[in-house]
Amino acid sequence: MNARLLSLRSLMEARGWDAVVLTGSDPHASEYPAPRWKQVEWLTGFSGEAGDVVVTSSHAGLWTDSRYFIAASKVLPAAGFELHKTRLPDSVGIPQWLSENIDVQHLTVAVDSCSHSASGVQEIADALAASGRVPEGGESSALTFSIVGVPDLLGSLWTDRPAVPSSPIITLGDDLSGESRLSKIAWLRDFLRRKGCDAMLLTSLDEIAWVLNVRGADIAYNPLVISYLLVTPDAVKWYVLKGSVQDGETRDSLEELRADGISIMDYEAVFYDIPSEAVYVDPSTLNQEVLQALRDCGATAVQGPSPVPLRKAVKNAVEIAGMREAHVEDGLVMERFLYWLENMVSAGERLSEWDAACKIGSLRATVQGYRGDSFETISAYGESAALPHYVTPSVDAPLLEPRGLYLCDSGGQYMFGTTDITRTVPLGPCSALEREDYTLVLKGHIDLSMAVFPRGTSGCNIDVLARNPLWQMRRNFGHGTGHGVGSFLCVHEGPHSIRQNTLACPLVPGMVVTDEPGIYREGRHGIRHENVLLVTEDGTNDFGSWLRFEPLTLCHFDTSVLVRELLTREELAWLDAYNERVFTALSPRLPAPIAAWLRTKCAPLG
Amino acid sequence: MNARLLSLRSLMEARGWDAVVLTGSDPHASEYPAPRWKQVEWLTGFSGEAGDVVVTSSHAGLWTDSRYFIAASKVLPAAGFELHKTRLPDSVGIPQWLSENIDVQHLTVAVDSCSHSASGVQEIADALAASGRVPEGGESSALTFSIVGVPDLLGSLWTDRPAVPSSPIITLGDDLSGESRLSKIAWLRDFLRRKGCDAMLLTSLDEIAWVLNVRGADIAYNPLVISYLLVTPDAVKWYVLKGSVQDGETRDSLEELRADGISIMDYEAVFYDIPSEAVYVDPSTLNQEVLQALRDCGATAVQGPSPVPLRKAVKNAVEIAGMREAHVEDGLVMERFLYWLENMVSAGERLSEWDAACKIGSLRATVQGYRGDSFETISAYGESAALPHYVTPSVDAPLLEPRGLYLCDSGGQYMFGTTDITRTVPLGPCSALEREDYTLVLKGHIDLSMAVFPRGTSGCNIDVLARNPLWQMRRNFGHGTGHGVGSFLCVHEGPHSIRQNTLACPLVPGMVVTDEPGIYREGRHGIRHENVLLVTEDGTNDFGSWLRFEPLTLCHFDTSVLVRELLTREELAWLDAYNERVFTALSPRLPAPIAAWLRTKCAPLG
Repeated sequence: MNARLLSLRSLMEARGWDAVVLTGSDPHASEYPAPRWKQVEWLTGFSGEAGDVVVTSSHAGLWTDSRYFIAASKVLPAAGFELHKTRLPDSVGIPQWLSENIDVQHLTVAVDSCSHSASGVQEIADALAASGRVPEGGESSALTFSIVGVPDLLGSLWTDRPAVPSSPIITLGDDLSGESRLSKIAWLRDFLRRKGCDAMLLTSLDEIAWVLNVRGADIAYNPLVISYLLVTPDAVKWYVLKGSVQDGETRDSLEELRADGISIMDYEAVFYDIPSEAVYVDPSTLNQEVLQALRDCGATAVQGPSPVPLRKAVKNAVEIAGMREAHVEDGLVMERFLYWLENMVSAGERLSEWDAACKIGSLRATVQGYRGDSFETISAYGESAALPHYVTPSVDAPLLEPRGLYLCDSGGQYMFGTTDITRTVPLGPCSALEREDYTLVLKGHIDLSMAVFPRGTSGCNIDVLARNPLWQMRRNFGHGTGHGVGSFLCVHEGPHSIRQNTLACPLVPGMVVTDEPGIYREGRHGIRHENVLLVTEDGTNDFGSWLRFEPLTLCHFDTSVLVRELLTREELAWLDAYNERVFTALSPRLPAPIAAWLRTKCAPLG
Repeated sequence: MNARLLSLRSLMEARGWDAVVLTGSDPHASEYPAPRWKQVEWLTGFSGEAGDVVVTSSHAGLWTDSRYFIAASKVLPAAGFELHKTRLPDSVGIPQWLSENIDVQHLTVAVDSCSHSASGVQEIADALAASGRVPEGGESSALTFSIVGVPDLLGSLWTDRPAVPSSPIITLGDDLSGESRLSKIAWLRDFLRRKGCDAMLLTSLDEIAWVLNVRGADIAYNPLVISYLLVTPDAVKWYVLKGSVQDGETRDSLEELRADGISIMDYEAVFYDIPSEAVYVDPSTLNQEVLQALRDCGATAVQGPSPVPLRKAVKNAVEIAGMREAHVEDGLVMERFLYWLENMVSAGERLSEWDAACKIGSLRATVQGYRGDSFETISAYGESAALPHYVTPSVDAPLLEPRGLYLCDSGGQYMFGTTDITRTVPLGPCSALEREDYTLVLKGHIDLSMAVFPRGTSGCNIDVLARNPLWQMRRNFGHGTGHGVGSFLCVHEGPHSIRQNTLACPLVPGMVVTDEPGIYREGRHGIRHENVLLVTEDGTNDFGSWLRFEPLTLCHFDTSVLVRELLTREELAWLDAYNERVFTALSPRLPAPIAAWLRTKCAPLG
């Protein structure tokens, strides 16, 4: 039996909690939490990116989505947890489950208030209220509830818990950021004025990194610094863990910030050093503990969406130039990698998926300005690639064979930009179904990339362009088509996206977004073709103001396995022009044998 | 000077109203109001379908959208009104305008409470509150507001106002409706139980007609009966103006309803004969006066969306069969019309747009079960067609010439179904631009019609299929691509649609929706190609459950002006198959000369 679960239940009984809810999130609602906040993994053994937990005296459940059903079902039984499937038509979410499955007069739900967002707690409260319960202190005859926010709920149980990370801090000059922190702060103060608020507390780590032009390495793959940022009309306070021993780089960075009038505060000071006025916060990234602290200090929390994500998503000229540079460097890495791969496989070398992942990582590491990968490389051969979120094992990884398709999804963090690219390439003869799937996915990729659309168009309005060639053949893929990409920031960023959800967020010039349709056949093969695209202007006429995409990614698409008849004249022309552009941009900087090889790979079809 | 405006301002002064807001709507938020509720037209002379009015002591304004800018600017100056443009990026709506443009300590806004929806009044209240005003009775020092609901606000001024219409009432048997009113009422009672409400008041006329299986002719083009419907667990009350003299048909209809346990109440009784309990209402179609009456009676108005539109939109087997029959009949009418048109024009007959509109109307009138047109026919030649909402003048209508394009958008109400069709046909030689536009719009029409999509897909996700061929050439159209169509009900119905707005309303089998892309070039030409489509099942496989469209409309598309190279092989195959299907379905019932003519029109291209 799971000793950790038993100890949690003892704690619950001692405190009188009917249910405990834990999220896999950190105090800043980051996509990837640092090890300190992997409490769901500590409790259940489940290590997927999305997983929330409910424990009662009689039930222990983990909620996750289809990406992780298989992984979860492998580890949960031993841990004493049941799997609850989310994002299905009849899914019951945690708030609703709590409201329907605990039969007590007064229901006490404990949440870890540091890792629970204010909006997440509100959802639980709303669901309990909708089920007919009233908050404690209401009518005595009624069913009641209370939600107890407990900071560091697992603290007394998880004795070897990792510390809050505190990596070196660097700053980006205007030559890399394109806009000074003082300019960004002035814009935030203008926002505050328009909202009639006295202060703004930023809680999302990539928003803070963008405003201050700072970067760190507190979280794997994301160059962020764990911190909070308070902006008032006449002060800026950065609540950050400085660490007991500071390296020279960090000291210089903090000195630079102080010179810009920014006060460096202790990370924990956010809980008491708060102005007792109207503080604007975004409840989707604010944790419940800080919200409670604000209220305890007498502040009014004015809740609304942060204005930072949209402005951050629209890259300025310097950022766009940096993203272009990053994609040239990354393209050189990719072509070197694909050349190496083809040669190794055709030479009969014994290569595993893991070896290939290591190779591309080591090639990226040679780039000047490389700061690590932007996410964990997916290096997947054959049926491995049929799992869209496959994790390549470092031990006993499947071997690459000289047949079928190999998929590699990877990206780099460079001082001047972030990349994210997927290529699927043949390692030898391919089946008719592999060739057809490869072509249909590429057709969708091209159709979206060729899109021209009027200002005001949201991603959900054009997502179908990437899917329609598959839909026509009754095929589909279960993930979004595109996400925003940060500028030496998170590889996944909003607020825009290209997916089926009906979210109004128009694409505007300067945004970057991926174009990554795929197809996944369990036990057979997986295919994805991914470029990063820049939204650009395309003129104005009687019918309106037009936008289009420019691919930033530079790496050829393999044409040897195409079923040519499935592509239109326009699609073939796009493909030839793209491959030619790749060759022209990269070949001058490639060794002669690789340039010659790339010439044949980019030979026009038309 | 506008005497009606002067008399309204005198009334305002006498009553102490700072502003009066009038809508062009009737008490049931109908798309087309009966003459009695054309108060905006009475006051301003403006007769567009969408127009709301604000009058203050110093300003008189009319709010309308781009469809009516030209028409409004012709009549408003003489009436003393200024035009406020809506649906533009920087548009200021009436609620916001009221909050920003009247500088008094206490602001009193009067609305005509019978023709103002509860949600419309709420929007005004929200905007005034957001601007910092507090409702009357709050702090005495602050800026305050009150909204006064005045039933029949213009009553004392508009002395020759038309009466509430009261046309004959007919009922539909199960052979036409496919579901008895008792079955629909049982379903509503089940909804009430799930909502925990004691009663439901239906206020939208097409919802009431659908539930009761009744039809009338109180509103032009819409076969509706002006009424309210109250459903409780053990009673059904229909509040309807019976008229002093009842025809035999109406008497029989009411008798049939009474036999089903439905009480026939006076129309006005809705204001006092109300259960003092929880009454479920939809604030988007409930008028403010009834909401006030509910509150005065001590009832609780539980506000939420009505469940009727979605269920009504999903046609049952009998309705689908009826829609098919309606489209065969309508197709025969259309082919007779197009044959007549081509012969008349080529014979050099002097024909006007109005003559053509009359011809198609008279052909429809010969169909057994015809109950009128489903909207006002748009018969538009050349540049007339460039106005998407052109109204063909009955006097001095433009003449048809043996060149260029003619557009006809029309539809019929039949006892067994409703139709809506647009065809654009050449009357002689066409310019290269006309041919190209014609082809691109048809390409978009075909691409949407060919769509295959997974269950859960909303109209906004596939709208781009109809636009993409135009967007690729930087062309577009300014209206939605598709709307639902009633079953011998309103030609425009929701809740689904195919347009750019990000509205989550999945298409489900049994829904019908139009496919009507277009292009409009001011001073030159206008093109639209419209079919009604039925959403049907298309099987299930590893990738999900699939849906597709089946065109219900049966009328050939002219191929003589196509630019063939702009169509793909698949699009040409679709067009040939569609035209062949039209010929097969209609030719047996057409006179030999027309059948022979249709044979040439439907000759395959492939």
